[in-house]
Amino acid sequence: MTAILLKGASIVYDTYTGKQLCNLNVYIEDGLIQEITEKSTGFKSDYVVECNKKAVLPGLANTHTHLAMTLFRGLADDLPLREWLEKRIWPLERKLKREHALVASKLGLIELVKAGVTAFADNYFFEDALVEATKSVGLRALVCPPIFDGEFEEHTLSHVSNLVLSQRCDALVKWGFGPHSIYSCKKETLEQIGALSKEHEIRVTIHLAETRWSQVLCEKSFGKRETDLLEECGLLSPRTLASHAVWVTKQEIRKLANYEVSVSFCPVSNMKLAEGGVAPVPELLKEGVRVSFGTDGAASNNSLSVLETIKIGLLLIKHSRWDPTLLKPHEALLIATKNGYEALGFPKHALQTGNAADVITLDLRTPSVICHRSVPLPNRIVYAPVATVDVIVSGKPIMINGKILTIDEEEAKQEFTKALEDF
Amino acid sequence: MTAILLKGASIVYDTYTGKQLCNLNVYIEDGLIQEITEKSTGFKSDYVVECNKKAVLPGLANTHTHLAMTLFRGLADDLPLREWLEKRIWPLERKLKREHALVASKLGLIELVKAGVTAFADNYFFEDALVEATKSVGLRALVCPPIFDGEFEEHTLSHVSNLVLSQRCDALVKWGFGPHSIYSCKKETLEQIGALSKEHEIRVTIHLAETRWSQVLCEKSFGKRETDLLEECGLLSPRTLASHAVWVTKQEIRKLANYEVSVSFCPVSNMKLAEGGVAPVPELLKEGVRVSFGTDGAASNNSLSVLETIKIGLLLIKHSRWDPTLLKPHEALLIATKNGYEALGFPKHALQTGNAADVITLDLRTPSVICHRSVPLPNRIVYAPVATVDVIVSGKPIMINGKILTIDEEEAKQEFTKALEDF
Repeated sequence: MTAILLKGASIVYDTYTGKQLCNLNVYIEDGLIQEITEKSTGFKSDYVVECNKKAVLPGLANTHTHLAMTLFRGLADDLPLREWLEKRIWPLERKLKREHALVASKLGLIELVKAGVTAFADNYFFEDALVEATKSVGLRALVCPPIFDGEFEEHTLSHVSNLVLSQRCDALVKWGFGPHSIYSCKKETLEQIGALSKEHEIRVTIHLAETRWSQVLCEKSFGKRETDLLEECGLLSPRTLASHAVWVTKQEIRKLANYEVSVSFCPVSNMKLAEGGVAPVPELLKEGVRVSFGTDGAASNNSLSVLETIKIGLLLIKHSRWDPTLLKPHEALLIATKNGYEALGFPKHALQTGNAADVITLDLRTPSVICHRSVPLPNRIVYAPVATVDVIVSGKPIMINGKILTIDEEEAKQEFTKALEDF
Repeated sequence: MTAILLKGASIVYDTYTGKQLCNLNVYIEDGLIQEITEKSTGFKSDYVVECNKKAVLPGLANTHTHLAMTLFRGLADDLPLREWLEKRIWPLERKLKREHALVASKLGLIELVKAGVTAFADNYFFEDALVEATKSVGLRALVCPPIFDGEFEEHTLSHVSNLVLSQRCDALVKWGFGPHSIYSCKKETLEQIGALSKEHEIRVTIHLAETRWSQVLCEKSFGKRETDLLEECGLLSPRTLASHAVWVTKQEIRKLANYEVSVSFCPVSNMKLAEGGVAPVPELLKEGVRVSFGTDGAASNNSLSVLETIKIGLLLIKHSRWDPTLLKPHEALLIATKNGYEALGFPKHALQTGNAADVITLDLRTPSVICHRSVPLPNRIVYAPVATVDVIVSGKPIMINGKILTIDEEEAKQEFTKALEDF
């Protein structure tokens, strides 16, 4: 295994504890953080990464995206969700082939790396292509092929469960079930997924209460709220990651908390699709729900940057409650790292000896990051844009000094540009 | 004067007309765009800037900021406006000296340049220091020293009017009056500013209806809305640039339109301070008000990037109206360039022969900018972050290939870091 020395880091900020230290060296070997220390000598390393004017912190998690949708970025802007889906996205998806998904996933992965994301959840077509791309780049992913009761034969429960149950999860890639939503699956399908998830301890991602429409439809069809229906189907558990959760009631929030369900907060996608409402993040957090951040796909954001989503998410919560004191930058970083990793089922990556070495560095030479000494790092990097310089996942160097090492960025861009011609 | 050839630009996008062309050369001399042409030879240029994989467009205007507040970035986060002002900002400002304002303005200018901003309005203490910094960097500025009826002797009307009336405006720097707000000036002061503005044709910037509190106070004190009071004081005219305009009525909007007042929309600052409400941008635009974008100061945003403000502004309008079709990226770029320049009193900088050469280039190698050929440039650069590569103002190269030419960036950062120690 590669050994890496992050040398002379100006700031080491552990999002898990909020502890901020200066001028330290981080030594990484065997996929783990071995030592965080003042001494910079005596280490045998394959890579010495100079970290003067850089901040070292745990990598960010993007807990809701559809990477191959980078192909459709900009093709469905400024539309309501139903029209976005039916008039633009579905017709495009009918042309989608595995080779498109592969190159589109690679481009999405490059964007994630450059935004300091080290782990993500994905839910889209041709997930085996996504896994191929993810393994070539080296990020961690929870991969949940979507399940519909509809026109996509490859995405019926039987196909997806055969696929998922035959895969071997490893330290970097985990497979799960991705029932798209309550409105696109039959109740029996959801019940079967609930049973399989329990029996095989398999994670599940699902769109929950993204719009008023989906809640109203659920009430009309089943006489109950979406969260209650998921409970009935055995789909509320610590293995479930529910995206959006905009239109949930207090009673639903308590239920999500009781069952230890994780929630992905996707403020940019929600604002852009403008279905109204704001996910009740303060109430979710207060009840103990494991909230994290998701960007959603590139066709509905259109950026995959978690840091951008954090800024906009904090602004949205403060603005909608007329309360600027709600949700602080250090809380946002805690939930974007610790909560995100827990929601995806990946190991602890707090900056402490023995933890997973999923580490990023940010550029402290950016003018907007230069602040008074009393300003903590989270405020510097959350409220103004900052560049990611280095990315290490499970001890492996993915990007060093802005250069991606694991795949050829130019080649990936060319392949992607070529694939766009098919649409 | 310098002659510059922007050679082989992949995209030339004129925000004024929405016209997007490919593979063109832009020739700049004597401060003006001389030619936009397919041929790339036959020009005698001091600078040849390779523009393959770059988009050329008119520079952005930031119509509301307080540059020297870069000193206070991060020192007053997550507070309501009155507390932000009284507990944090005012005590800090009492320690502020001219030399601080000079180095802080330089850092702010560097940030503006790197964000593609070529012109801005400023309203803060020690505006002569801001002007010195602005002239050294080479941007265009409308500089409006604040006027208060309060504790700041240098900022009474008599001091400021002596200063402003003794200054010579030039092509790059214009002086104006900056009465802070209705609640921090006496009515007689506002009336005198109105008369001076009319007599000497001098521009005025003022905070208008930023909070419910300021409107309520105005109603209590004068029995009328803020816009009506400004009218009574002779302060509604095409020379006036009103910032925020969140809590205005339909009747006020019509009045702003009738008098051709400009409005600076500052969504990020408004959301972060969370005083509630959303500036009625669709109604303002519909009535014909010249709306543009402002970031506000670094202590209340905390970024000076207009492109970031545009994205968040569009999201906020769509979200708050439950209507994703409102405000499109090309409209946003039109108002961020044309409207901004008009609001500040600077010349037309549409990408056409004979106009002011205030031009920026953006990096089209960014993964998120690579889209299907049918996606127009505005959608690519508004909804996902993109880097500015070159900045030219009035035909002068300010930043070329990411390197600022007019001042020493490292020295400016060091001086700024040193100045922070005084706070």
